[in-house]
Amino acid sequence: MADTLSALRSVMSSHNPPLDALVVPSEDYHQSEYVSARDKRREFVSGFSGSAGLALITMNEALLWTDGRYFLQATQQLSAGWKLMRMGEDPALDVWMVDNLPNHAAIGVDPWCVSVDTAHRWERAFGKKEQKLVQTSTNLVDEVWKNRPPAEANPVVVHPTEFAGQLVADKLKDLREKLIHVQARGIIFTALDEVAWLYNIRGSDVSYSPVVHAFAIVMINSAFLYVDKRKVSSEVNSSLKENGIEVRDYTAVSSDVVMLASDQLDPSSTVKGTQAAVQEEMKTNVLDKYTKEEDNNNDLIWVDPGSCCYALYSKLNSDKVILQQSPVALPKALKNPVEMEGLKKAHIRDGAAVVQYLVWLDQQMQEIYGASGYFLEGDGANKKKKSLIKDKTNCLAILLQETMKLTEVTASDKLESFRASKEHFRGLSFPTISSVGPNAAIIHYSPEAETCAEFDPESIYLFDSGAQYLDGTTDITRTVHFGKPSAHEKACYTAVLKGHIALGNMRFPNGTTGHALDIVARVPLWKDGLDYRHGTGHGIGSYLNVHEGPHLISFRPRNVPLQASMTVTDEPGYYEDGSFGIRLENVLIIKDADTQFNFGDKGYLCFEHITWAPYQTKLINLSLLVPEEIDWLNTYHSKCRDILAPYLDESQLAWLKKATEPISA
Amino acid sequence: MADTLSALRSVMSSHNPPLDALVVPSEDYHQSEYVSARDKRREFVSGFSGSAGLALITMNEALLWTDGRYFLQATQQLSAGWKLMRMGEDPALDVWMVDNLPNHAAIGVDPWCVSVDTAHRWERAFGKKEQKLVQTSTNLVDEVWKNRPPAEANPVVVHPTEFAGQLVADKLKDLREKLIHVQARGIIFTALDEVAWLYNIRGSDVSYSPVVHAFAIVMINSAFLYVDKRKVSSEVNSSLKENGIEVRDYTAVSSDVVMLASDQLDPSSTVKGTQAAVQEEMKTNVLDKYTKEEDNNNDLIWVDPGSCCYALYSKLNSDKVILQQSPVALPKALKNPVEMEGLKKAHIRDGAAVVQYLVWLDQQMQEIYGASGYFLEGDGANKKKKSLIKDKTNCLAILLQETMKLTEVTASDKLESFRASKEHFRGLSFPTISSVGPNAAIIHYSPEAETCAEFDPESIYLFDSGAQYLDGTTDITRTVHFGKPSAHEKACYTAVLKGHIALGNMRFPNGTTGHALDIVARVPLWKDGLDYRHGTGHGIGSYLNVHEGPHLISFRPRNVPLQASMTVTDEPGYYEDGSFGIRLENVLIIKDADTQFNFGDKGYLCFEHITWAPYQTKLINLSLLVPEEIDWLNTYHSKCRDILAPYLDESQLAWLKKATEPISA
Repeated sequence: MADTLSALRSVMSSHNPPLDALVVPSEDYHQSEYVSARDKRREFVSGFSGSAGLALITMNEALLWTDGRYFLQATQQLSAGWKLMRMGEDPALDVWMVDNLPNHAAIGVDPWCVSVDTAHRWERAFGKKEQKLVQTSTNLVDEVWKNRPPAEANPVVVHPTEFAGQLVADKLKDLREKLIHVQARGIIFTALDEVAWLYNIRGSDVSYSPVVHAFAIVMINSAFLYVDKRKVSSEVNSSLKENGIEVRDYTAVSSDVVMLASDQLDPSSTVKGTQAAVQEEMKTNVLDKYTKEEDNNNDLIWVDPGSCCYALYSKLNSDKVILQQSPVALPKALKNPVEMEGLKKAHIRDGAAVVQYLVWLDQQMQEIYGASGYFLEGDGANKKKKSLIKDKTNCLAILLQETMKLTEVTASDKLESFRASKEHFRGLSFPTISSVGPNAAIIHYSPEAETCAEFDPESIYLFDSGAQYLDGTTDITRTVHFGKPSAHEKACYTAVLKGHIALGNMRFPNGTTGHALDIVARVPLWKDGLDYRHGTGHGIGSYLNVHEGPHLISFRPRNVPLQASMTVTDEPGYYEDGSFGIRLENVLIIKDADTQFNFGDKGYLCFEHITWAPYQTKLINLSLLVPEEIDWLNTYHSKCRDILAPYLDESQLAWLKKATEPISA
Repeated sequence: MADTLSALRSVMSSHNPPLDALVVPSEDYHQSEYVSARDKRREFVSGFSGSAGLALITMNEALLWTDGRYFLQATQQLSAGWKLMRMGEDPALDVWMVDNLPNHAAIGVDPWCVSVDTAHRWERAFGKKEQKLVQTSTNLVDEVWKNRPPAEANPVVVHPTEFAGQLVADKLKDLREKLIHVQARGIIFTALDEVAWLYNIRGSDVSYSPVVHAFAIVMINSAFLYVDKRKVSSEVNSSLKENGIEVRDYTAVSSDVVMLASDQLDPSSTVKGTQAAVQEEMKTNVLDKYTKEEDNNNDLIWVDPGSCCYALYSKLNSDKVILQQSPVALPKALKNPVEMEGLKKAHIRDGAAVVQYLVWLDQQMQEIYGASGYFLEGDGANKKKKSLIKDKTNCLAILLQETMKLTEVTASDKLESFRASKEHFRGLSFPTISSVGPNAAIIHYSPEAETCAEFDPESIYLFDSGAQYLDGTTDITRTVHFGKPSAHEKACYTAVLKGHIALGNMRFPNGTTGHALDIVARVPLWKDGLDYRHGTGHGIGSYLNVHEGPHLISFRPRNVPLQASMTVTDEPGYYEDGSFGIRLENVLIIKDADTQFNFGDKGYLCFEHITWAPYQTKLINLSLLVPEEIDWLNTYHSKCRDILAPYLDESQLAWLKKATEPISA
């Protein structure tokens, strides 16, 4: 790794102008959270594999900024010569630059890998010492990355309306109305999930997200998809054409944005024909309004500064740009009835897989380790395995020991296999967090086969996982113990559960942000001086990204009110470094609440849980629950049983019945 | 009132340049919340007497913006020709201007009555249509206000250290260190409570706030107080002089700020002598640092843009101004041990007065109206008075009827008399809200003797009141019923109480804002679709303003973390227009929490209640409380009894014992 750094520094020195520092963000050209192997530049240079982070290389330092979820993981993974910068505790990158680099320093970044917002923020900060953000014309990391994986060529598929719930034509119509409303003549989409949602296409270019590496440009009369053409079959091409979408090569976006800036971006004649038909259909509504505008001033280009890369933005005339949240962000977040139904169904199948996994795990833990199991708090753990391996000279015993070994990875593979057996399964929605004991304290822990931990009946086990199904994306976390949890572990589990229930039971007026709700899940933890260093909830896509905006439930302010038809997770936690971690996560759908009153005529909202899997009652200190919480838990468990029953065999159902038996204080 | 408007419009027309609109804020030259009679310009023009609001007069419209606390009151009070603009619902002033006034409109304002922040915000907004904010050289309202009250000449008094807890010299030293730290050579104070706090002076120029109409300028080597010299006795003058403070005339601030801008503001020779002594004392610390700074660049003037008037700011060179929250805001909010002790003592005496008032009120309600009283829920109300006045021809009966009438004003006068009998009483801290039935729904209702309501044993009675004592400022709200409250009233009271308890019981890590905590008090109300249109808490002064920043507990974002040693109120409510209102308010002190753990080493905080008066248990639906809430209430009530006992006579104490009897579910 020292080689990588010195190679990079040499490229930085010979750059014109020579760079005092190079920023390597973790994002790809589309500001994605999960990126393909060849785009993991930040991991390549630093060794840190977490999903969020930012590397900075100067001539004598190498720094990695990441957030609270990854502090522990980063300290373990960072290559020699790297220093961890804790976001929220250490100075931010822009502050650090100004404090540590000289006046007039040149700070390089690949402008394709940084958003307009971020670039603008840095430029403002750097300006204080007349430091300059330099857009490199190539990616300097790529220059020193010898075995960089090749570009993928996975097929683009059409996402059928039976799952998407809305025709591309309708989505384009709504979009174009919004363009006209703000006097825009076009918009650039760079976020992969936005392109996939808008054009009802899916792919497999990126792990965990069924998206296609692509850009899109939509104008009032035309629409373009920029993608490696090898990925587009003639059937898919025709389907796109029917909606007036012209396929162009991925790399053409660069020159086309230049044409767009000068209003010279025209569709090719082959597509024009179909576009004429589309326009005919539109004429009565969108275009009609457009042409009626007395003086048609629509000459702006809409760019979402949070997702659009600085490279494309820089090709536009900034006076003619609207920097505003993408008009697709909210419609994508507001699930239509078909998507809603699909999400609910996917979560039921997913819950069944989770229960099957728990049943299997319970059995394994008892058989291999002699654990008292999911239900009993007895001692006697490790008996079996210990007695088997007492005689180290016995070859059979040694063989059995290896065969019977249950590790974080073998277990999560089993979980995946349960999911894979379900209808519409298409893969995982993020790297499964399967973590035993101290590893559970690493919030976004991702076990590796070679180094991962073995199960231990004396330790907490936390698994946070989800899948992509054609009808919906899932995300669930449960924390369990197959031996005798300590009183402290139970107290912490109970505090997390109380926060999880309190948030899920919230009713709140329209206009309330997730930022305002965040505290509700922390109150029970704060009572004991406990907390967690991550947000409390995120939106979830419909066979799309597992983390989806524009809303969020977080201590970080984000001024997006929660609305009916949004999805959001409810996932408080508690983590004790070197010891254990607890997290409980369900996906919720926001819906209108049936409140007795409606003060201020605002309308009140509430949540509906769509995740189904039991909470381990053995881990609850029942004396800490109030009657309302016990009632909620019993009701949830009873629904769980009824909803999952059709997907379970007899013994699994018997297990679930036991796991969901009503509790009382 | 139509006369006033036409007179104003005529002055606006003849102004140079002619004004298309005139803004009349409710603030005085010091951005005060409570202003003296002669500064109630907004009330004079509009008729609306609430403490917050903003009037706008155009050639054909007259609009009054106010917030949710005052919607009902404003509709009742606004003069003919005025239209209410509801903040948070209707477009804001700056938006309205841009939407409704022509391009290039001239919008006048007295720059002494508007803060730098507000003026800047308006200028930015108006700029969109090239509208211009015109600073009038005189106050146009004063020109048409015939019987404007004369200027007051109340004496300035020194606030002794036994109450202030910190010497002026120490406050000035801390302040000057901050000035040096930000490279400032001087600072202008316009907020009356900041001047009073910094110089340890008090006065009686403004109702409810023991402040002096004054400005202050503090430089590294000198300090000035701008005040009507008639108010300053030679003793007070000497005391100020000892601290190096020179008294100058109130109106001299204008020309002195011009001198300040060009660095020509020098103290007169008479003060220089004492300043030399002060400087000698300072030399070892502040000045030493100042002169040591290698290249002394201290050439900036510090101005708090939220409180400083635009008039004074405009006299400065804006390149040489630091616009930042006043360095005195936080030290003033963080009560020192002497202030803390004083506040606690003042609240005990104040609580005793409130209990004495409740005892008296209970007796009156039973005697005059035959109410079942504070403790019983029985019927039979109005019996007595009705029977007495049956015979309308009986003169004695009619006389008795008037004598025995209990009104919102006669009652609040009685409450004031109980307070006035207490040690260190100096007046009320704000207009007492004494409100029966529907009037209680007017959040900042202020009853007038002629028009106020009579008590009614069938109605809720809400009183929100406080006093100024030499050792502290108080603010308390209780809501009571002397007859049979409805199930709905009890449910609402209980929801408000639950929110009040939940907030008061919060523990939270350092760094948490009041904005984040606000929701905690609303959760129980939101469950039923109820809410309140005001913030949940404000800081309170130490024999100073009853509303004190910089912190706040509110749904409106304010990025000021709560800190140990701050005071803050806890006052959720619920209001049903035309029917009733409920609010419960205690003052809390923020202190370190003794949590079992200390996750993240942040330190956790909690609240200590310092207000003592019972909650009416008759109004609680006990079945809605959880054990933790019942425990809290019983503990609070028991403390209440013990703490107030020494201040009550035998019968009052007997009443309090009954009022604080433990409850159970």
